[in-house]
Amino acid sequence: MRADDDSLYREQLPNVCNLVTDGGRKLCRPTTVTNKFPILSWLPRYRTEYLAQDFIAGFTVGLTTIPQAIAYGVVAGLEPQYGLYSAFMGCFTYIIFGSCKDVTIATTAIMALMVHQYAIISPDYAVLACFLAGCIILVLGLLNMGVLVRFISIPVITGFTMSAATTIGSAQINNLMGLSSPSNDLLPAWKNFFTHLTSIRRWDAILGVLTLVFLLLMKHVKDIKWGNKTFWKYLALARNALAVIIGTYLAYALSRDGNQPFRVTGNITAGVPPFRPPPFSTTIDGTYVSFGEMISTLGPSLGSIPMIAILEIVAISKAFSKGKIVDASQEMVALGMCNIMGSFVLSMPVTGSFTRTAVNNASGVRTPLGGAVTGCLVLMALAFLTQTFYYIPKATLAAIIIAAMISLVELHKITDMWKSKRRDLLPFLVTILTCLFWSLEYGILCGIVANLVYILYSSARPQLNITVEKINGHEFGLVEVKQKLDYACAEYVKEKVVRFINQQNGETHLIVLKGEEINSIDYTVAMNIITLKEDLEVLHCDLVCWNWNMGSAGVVCRLKPEMRSIFKFNYAIEELVAAHFDGSPNTSSTVTIASDN
Amino acid sequence: MRADDDSLYREQLPNVCNLVTDGGRKLCRPTTVTNKFPILSWLPRYRTEYLAQDFIAGFTVGLTTIPQAIAYGVVAGLEPQYGLYSAFMGCFTYIIFGSCKDVTIATTAIMALMVHQYAIISPDYAVLACFLAGCIILVLGLLNMGVLVRFISIPVITGFTMSAATTIGSAQINNLMGLSSPSNDLLPAWKNFFTHLTSIRRWDAILGVLTLVFLLLMKHVKDIKWGNKTFWKYLALARNALAVIIGTYLAYALSRDGNQPFRVTGNITAGVPPFRPPPFSTTIDGTYVSFGEMISTLGPSLGSIPMIAILEIVAISKAFSKGKIVDASQEMVALGMCNIMGSFVLSMPVTGSFTRTAVNNASGVRTPLGGAVTGCLVLMALAFLTQTFYYIPKATLAAIIIAAMISLVELHKITDMWKSKRRDLLPFLVTILTCLFWSLEYGILCGIVANLVYILYSSARPQLNITVEKINGHEFGLVEVKQKLDYACAEYVKEKVVRFINQQNGETHLIVLKGEEINSIDYTVAMNIITLKEDLEVLHCDLVCWNWNMGSAGVVCRLKPEMRSIFKFNYAIEELVAAHFDGSPNTSSTVTIASDN
Repeated sequence: MRADDDSLYREQLPNVCNLVTDGGRKLCRPTTVTNKFPILSWLPRYRTEYLAQDFIAGFTVGLTTIPQAIAYGVVAGLEPQYGLYSAFMGCFTYIIFGSCKDVTIATTAIMALMVHQYAIISPDYAVLACFLAGCIILVLGLLNMGVLVRFISIPVITGFTMSAATTIGSAQINNLMGLSSPSNDLLPAWKNFFTHLTSIRRWDAILGVLTLVFLLLMKHVKDIKWGNKTFWKYLALARNALAVIIGTYLAYALSRDGNQPFRVTGNITAGVPPFRPPPFSTTIDGTYVSFGEMISTLGPSLGSIPMIAILEIVAISKAFSKGKIVDASQEMVALGMCNIMGSFVLSMPVTGSFTRTAVNNASGVRTPLGGAVTGCLVLMALAFLTQTFYYIPKATLAAIIIAAMISLVELHKITDMWKSKRRDLLPFLVTILTCLFWSLEYGILCGIVANLVYILYSSARPQLNITVEKINGHEFGLVEVKQKLDYACAEYVKEKVVRFINQQNGETHLIVLKGEEINSIDYTVAMNIITLKEDLEVLHCDLVCWNWNMGSAGVVCRLKPEMRSIFKFNYAIEELVAAHFDGSPNTSSTVTIASDN
Repeated sequence: MRADDDSLYREQLPNVCNLVTDGGRKLCRPTTVTNKFPILSWLPRYRTEYLAQDFIAGFTVGLTTIPQAIAYGVVAGLEPQYGLYSAFMGCFTYIIFGSCKDVTIATTAIMALMVHQYAIISPDYAVLACFLAGCIILVLGLLNMGVLVRFISIPVITGFTMSAATTIGSAQINNLMGLSSPSNDLLPAWKNFFTHLTSIRRWDAILGVLTLVFLLLMKHVKDIKWGNKTFWKYLALARNALAVIIGTYLAYALSRDGNQPFRVTGNITAGVPPFRPPPFSTTIDGTYVSFGEMISTLGPSLGSIPMIAILEIVAISKAFSKGKIVDASQEMVALGMCNIMGSFVLSMPVTGSFTRTAVNNASGVRTPLGGAVTGCLVLMALAFLTQTFYYIPKATLAAIIIAAMISLVELHKITDMWKSKRRDLLPFLVTILTCLFWSLEYGILCGIVANLVYILYSSARPQLNITVEKINGHEFGLVEVKQKLDYACAEYVKEKVVRFINQQNGETHLIVLKGEEINSIDYTVAMNIITLKEDLEVLHCDLVCWNWNMGSAGVVCRLKPEMRSIFKFNYAIEELVAAHFDGSPNTSSTVTIASDN
């Protein structure tokens, strides 16, 4: 009882000195170093038999990465080689810092879409965005801010992904049909499509639609039960590479005197990008643009690109680490380093890619070392294959993007929400509508805020039971609160009690406020308990706080020591009521105060 | 059990049809009309003996209002008569719509400060702000949005009030010393004071400081126990009026050939303002300014002025309606109407004034009718006394403002917070620092957000007890959750359980998740329960959800009907564990799934 009683008069706070020394000790412990460099824990235990598996998986991922990278370079509004520039440095860096063996780092369709508006001004914006996003993610990771991602609920993530996929896919409908598309936005893309129906290029359209159908069918080839199952699985995984090879061959074979039947990717600058710091200033149309001006152009993207990048990698690493705890902050450190290093080789912002991570997992990767193979494959493609890339038809790339986006539009999740909790459709709808028709950056923010409203609303409306009880002929109101009280509900509680007393027509002269389960209250709630007591006195009613949690009672008592007298601990309710109404010396003081008024 | 079981398969939603018809019926009920026009309920019961009391109170408030109104006109950067224009229409309108007898509506120091930046461009901005703020407050009131005020905690209100008072008081230090002040901001005001120390006008400074000392002393005159207590009380109430009368007399008596020893208020435009619609466009220096341009100049003030106005009136009406429930939304309707009507007579934004409401209450007002007397007194002053106002020394007005502001800086609240809950000092400090050194509008927003973090943090960290239990030699982990689960804590719960199992080194093969007190979960939590089960299967551990709240269990079961088998209701824990480990037919299916992996 001593210690408990003590907490009425002194707030129990964590010892700051201990916190600091603990933190310091934790920071210098060897495991902390290993945690920040996961390679130190898995490389010493590497076994030679892993090599073959890592090689196969890395090679398969590489084959998937190359066509996707070129396509996403196009989505970003950059020359195709920028997609490839973004696809190798992340793989190498993640080997050192990454903690999840399956995750593959490269640019994704959503990242590409988010830099598009700046990248079309100058590629330097995309590279600078990569560097800055990397720095922000790294700092957030080191500050252990990974938990913030938890405030983005599945309905909001679903809404965001669906609308991003719809936007990206819609923009490619023009490329699929051989039209040139002026914008990456949803409505302008469809408007352009419908106003230029007569300009559709026949051969492009045929190739595009056939490729799309091919890709959508090939996805299900893995379910074939006939023959060698592994063969079908790998065939399904290689579908993008196959589509590109067939399309490129057709474009090459059908070309006459430099004229192709299809619109093709065209010249890709050959060679590995130079290793140099990201551009902190640039020149656009002969005008010098300073770092400050570049920052102000990037604007809100500097918040949204890191947020989405973190969201993607954390979601992916959690999905693929069944039964293991994912250190979200370490994943952020790894992702930050990948972006920072990437920006030295002209990369645009990168994050974990769901498709390629799934391919990596399905190919049986054993350690993050598989990424090295993928990275080398991309580098070799840049060095030796760019001439071949000239002939990749744009319609083929568009089909690859659209097929990937279709799989992101998970309509079944809408019916899931409808079946399980309809209320959750609201943040989903807010997110998807604002993302589609306003902007992805602000849309996801609107969704998050709309969803926070639920949390805030429930904190303002605590569960409160008020009942009229009668013991030995004495009537009193019993108020039961079953949760911690925040300032947002302070007035609600007070109002409920006063309203209850007003409804009793002056027949109830005692309110017992039971508080065993009120784990914590704040200053505002304490102030309201004090004014509640004063308000009740005007109504000729006493307030007794019964069996409160000591910590919460202390907040009130320390604020106004006179309130100590209304807190009663360790009484049975019968004793309490009897003592109050029959005027045992212990409680008579409160009665006197009340009858004074 | 039937109805309960049903809720596993169908979400229990409120009947929308009933909601609509109920709402319609409520809207057409006679009490709703009376609620919106409280005068209809108190005027028929008005008794003649109230008249004298209402008259005396209204007259006293009028005497306090007139000097304050002139002073606040100066704070707003307007000509002094604008303060008086703001001081009568609110009184008349509140009689019809107001529900709290003590509240007095007029402009306040904080309102004046908030319009200052626009009012110095043109008074039309202040009048338009009054009209628009009125419309916004009215709409929010009709939509019953009064509850939103609850999200502004006492620490944030305290921080805001203190910094506003400090800013207003600091700006008047220049007027007190006879200096002309270029800005109403904190730092520029003090900088101006210290760089112009040599320009201090001796007589202004003497009058100012003496008046200030006089006012601060007179405030305590009411505590004198000697002689007629009522006399001292009214003397204390009349201190502002006395200061003005003495100062004005001195300025008049000491003036020689139109030269006064003091800087005086100067010409005040005589007469009652015309009744005409607020200005929806204006002309500044000969340039036409459209409605749209005026709106964009007012900018964020259109959010913050209504918010602060609502905050002030709701706080005041609650403080003075002991034991009665204040209808915050009706107060907002009244305040909105006061502002709208006020804008027709060139008023700046108005709200409830704490000082004058306290005077009203102390003077024993019986009904809102007292406001009519106050309003008439202000109108008469405008009509007949403006010539006298010419001689009011600026230093006297500055002293009145500073004295009022000093009483708003309640330093004892800081020690209160320190004693009762130190955590609450953080939102307080955020508010006061951002308000002082950035802007009042954004400062209060920062404070609100800083405080919301506490609510959000606690929703992300639910109380969770995980213990190892042993029944009949069977070991299992018992997870107890005592509150509703939001999406923000979904991953936290999952992570805690998986971490627990990892720590048990494969010795625990059953997790019992007790959920009697989980009142509600959402889609994200349901998804995480499902993936938790899958994660646990990988770790050779089963999950049983024991005695869950039916509504919450339903969210999971409707999402994935197979999950029905892990929910066990109406079992004792011993039965449950025995059935699970000894393989009674009821639970064997779960065991099989687990051993498959």
